[in-house]
Amino acid sequence: MLKGNAIVGQSGGPTAAINATLAGVIRGAYASQAIGTVYGAFNGIEGILKGTVCVLNDIVKTDDDLDALSHTPAAALGSCRLKLPLIEDDRATYEKLFDFFKEKDIRYFFYIGGNDSMDTVAKLSLYASETDYDIRVMGVPKTIDNDVCGTDHTPGYGSAAKYIAASMQEIIRDTAVYKVKAVTVVEIMGRDAGWLTAAAGLPGLFCDAKPDLIYLPEVPFDYDKYYEDVQAAFEKKPNVVVAISEGARLADGTYLGASAQSGVTDVFGHAYLSGTGKALELATKARLACKVRSVELNILQRCASHIASLTDIRESLSIGEAAVRAAAEGATGKMMVFNRISNDPYKVVCECEDIRKIANMVREVPGEFINERGNNVTEECLRYIAPLIAGECSIKYENGLPVHFVIN
Amino acid sequence: MLKGNAIVGQSGGPTAAINATLAGVIRGAYASQAIGTVYGAFNGIEGILKGTVCVLNDIVKTDDDLDALSHTPAAALGSCRLKLPLIEDDRATYEKLFDFFKEKDIRYFFYIGGNDSMDTVAKLSLYASETDYDIRVMGVPKTIDNDVCGTDHTPGYGSAAKYIAASMQEIIRDTAVYKVKAVTVVEIMGRDAGWLTAAAGLPGLFCDAKPDLIYLPEVPFDYDKYYEDVQAAFEKKPNVVVAISEGARLADGTYLGASAQSGVTDVFGHAYLSGTGKALELATKARLACKVRSVELNILQRCASHIASLTDIRESLSIGEAAVRAAAEGATGKMMVFNRISNDPYKVVCECEDIRKIANMVREVPGEFINERGNNVTEECLRYIAPLIAGECSIKYENGLPVHFVIN
Repeated sequence: MLKGNAIVGQSGGPTAAINATLAGVIRGAYASQAIGTVYGAFNGIEGILKGTVCVLNDIVKTDDDLDALSHTPAAALGSCRLKLPLIEDDRATYEKLFDFFKEKDIRYFFYIGGNDSMDTVAKLSLYASETDYDIRVMGVPKTIDNDVCGTDHTPGYGSAAKYIAASMQEIIRDTAVYKVKAVTVVEIMGRDAGWLTAAAGLPGLFCDAKPDLIYLPEVPFDYDKYYEDVQAAFEKKPNVVVAISEGARLADGTYLGASAQSGVTDVFGHAYLSGTGKALELATKARLACKVRSVELNILQRCASHIASLTDIRESLSIGEAAVRAAAEGATGKMMVFNRISNDPYKVVCECEDIRKIANMVREVPGEFINERGNNVTEECLRYIAPLIAGECSIKYENGLPVHFVIN
Repeated sequence: MLKGNAIVGQSGGPTAAINATLAGVIRGAYASQAIGTVYGAFNGIEGILKGTVCVLNDIVKTDDDLDALSHTPAAALGSCRLKLPLIEDDRATYEKLFDFFKEKDIRYFFYIGGNDSMDTVAKLSLYASETDYDIRVMGVPKTIDNDVCGTDHTPGYGSAAKYIAASMQEIIRDTAVYKVKAVTVVEIMGRDAGWLTAAAGLPGLFCDAKPDLIYLPEVPFDYDKYYEDVQAAFEKKPNVVVAISEGARLADGTYLGASAQSGVTDVFGHAYLSGTGKALELATKARLACKVRSVELNILQRCASHIASLTDIRESLSIGEAAVRAAAEGATGKMMVFNRISNDPYKVVCECEDIRKIANMVREVPGEFINERGNNVTEECLRYIAPLIAGECSIKYENGLPVHFVIN
């Protein structure tokens, strides 16, 4: 058994469940015979480079602390969007990181992050193997986008999907109160994959409150077909509700929101999107003689922990614990994944996947989950998502507001 | 005792609590010796004019039905924005309404609505008195805006305030994960009164998660002072969070969002606003060298019943019941109001106010609730709001989603 200390960091965009995974790693590490001190790196890998770390043993002490942490949104240790350079381009950065590991006798490194963060895990484990430093480097996925390859779904997706589905149900009730012809466009996150937008359809599995049209980025958006779709929906009811992904693109690859866009790109070179819903609102208003409104669900999709999915929070905790167990048993350079054993009853197990098979790839919504017309998702798609939003967390409230656990 | 049937309608914008008031009226009417059949008017006064009504006794039957209705957002009977004409301008409309009342032996009329809806109550009670038709016409206020005169607060405001405060707390956690200098602008509803925007400050009463700056429509907005405010906030922390009302105006009365506005007005002649947050985002980006994002909380502020305030839902129910009791005891042409007897412990009672003192007026946030610089609210303001968001409802969930009660 490799004995030593551990460090854990969080990276990429926040979610409502990333702190549950942090709590899982901490709980797993506290329980492990292999691990001594558990360090937390502030702002991910940046914290290790800058020496801004904390001793979590002194901060997260009780089961109540772990519970409160699990229900706190965003990243309690802070996050970063730093992508490590290629090893051959900049060995100095790696030497700095490993000097820190050696100084603190770090033998376990857990990185909770999305697609881009798994690249960091792959590079660190490669460098460790090249330099013969014995350390177990493990990635634990998190992303509301659900677009990580090699796993049935990602921690964080279920809570975002639950927020989106519950909000859509409420928005649909709201729009139904007037009899005036109106289109409500709801813009949902998801740059390249439509998993979040697909979740807007969930209420329709169980009741009458479903969006009439759902457009994912996987299908090229066609304005003329869209106008036909809305007109057809108006034949049935006066209030048409449209769910559309922020990443919706025309056949030529142009984002719908291109004209309303800031033109900024993030450090990974991805276009920074906004305004897809607004663009569609303006186009619809200009073409169809009716009231049009657009609603952007925005960052609450990823941080609304007050309505987190119990299934998601439990799984996010357990995948963090499983990462520690796997590392203690010898795994390194791996990412933890969920394997769905059964859909009804729903059952998943945590497994390890080789990270090089996963990093920097995007898992889109498959064709069979999208209807032929490309304006909705199939029941099979919704049946895949449904178990992930099941269950409600017992959130502790004080003074009418959820209690969060803060690490300073 | 005036015996006869009752009719109830809902009007104006939806809230998370307007159906709780409907449930209160229904429960009160079922319990009353004076009232026989309880009719529901679809789409408010329009339903009476068109004859689209239902018999609620056949639809809302059990305590479970009443409970589910109380936790359903928007207006279960549908709403309208019809403003009745002056009696002298159009007696035919009033004759049509009162023909319906006579035909169905309606002796109790309950109208749940906002400022503009109380005007309907005033006109109907005036016409009834002019024509000697014995009917009790009662208004029950609802509006998330909390801008109705004559009452300590309005049913619906507490739930919207709770949603806003909880969402702000989550957004502040989310924005804190990166160390990069950034401004997050959160646009909150409230055309003329800043009550909703003030609620964004609530988390600051109890924890560290508070917006740095709060701008209400009651104070003329000054861009230069705003830039100074943001720069001062940057001295303390990298992530500055700004809450601003959709109704924020410059000293000359121009809305901030004027350039991004549709120019449309609603049927009451109010400007239809959007884009205040977006306008401030663009201005901030152009002036200060930092990342800027804007978030519009949008219609979820008024329909997010999944995080409704227990205090608000209970009060909304009880004010509906109280309206029935008051009417049975002889009140007419009145609006029900809350009178706050004590703040600590918090205690309110339901009373009647003469509707002519109330209709068509707006209650703004008073000057003593706003700080001297005009960029935040006072602790006294937050202490006034705090009891209204207290308590969480036991929402029934099925398949991971709240269960709503639908009246077709």
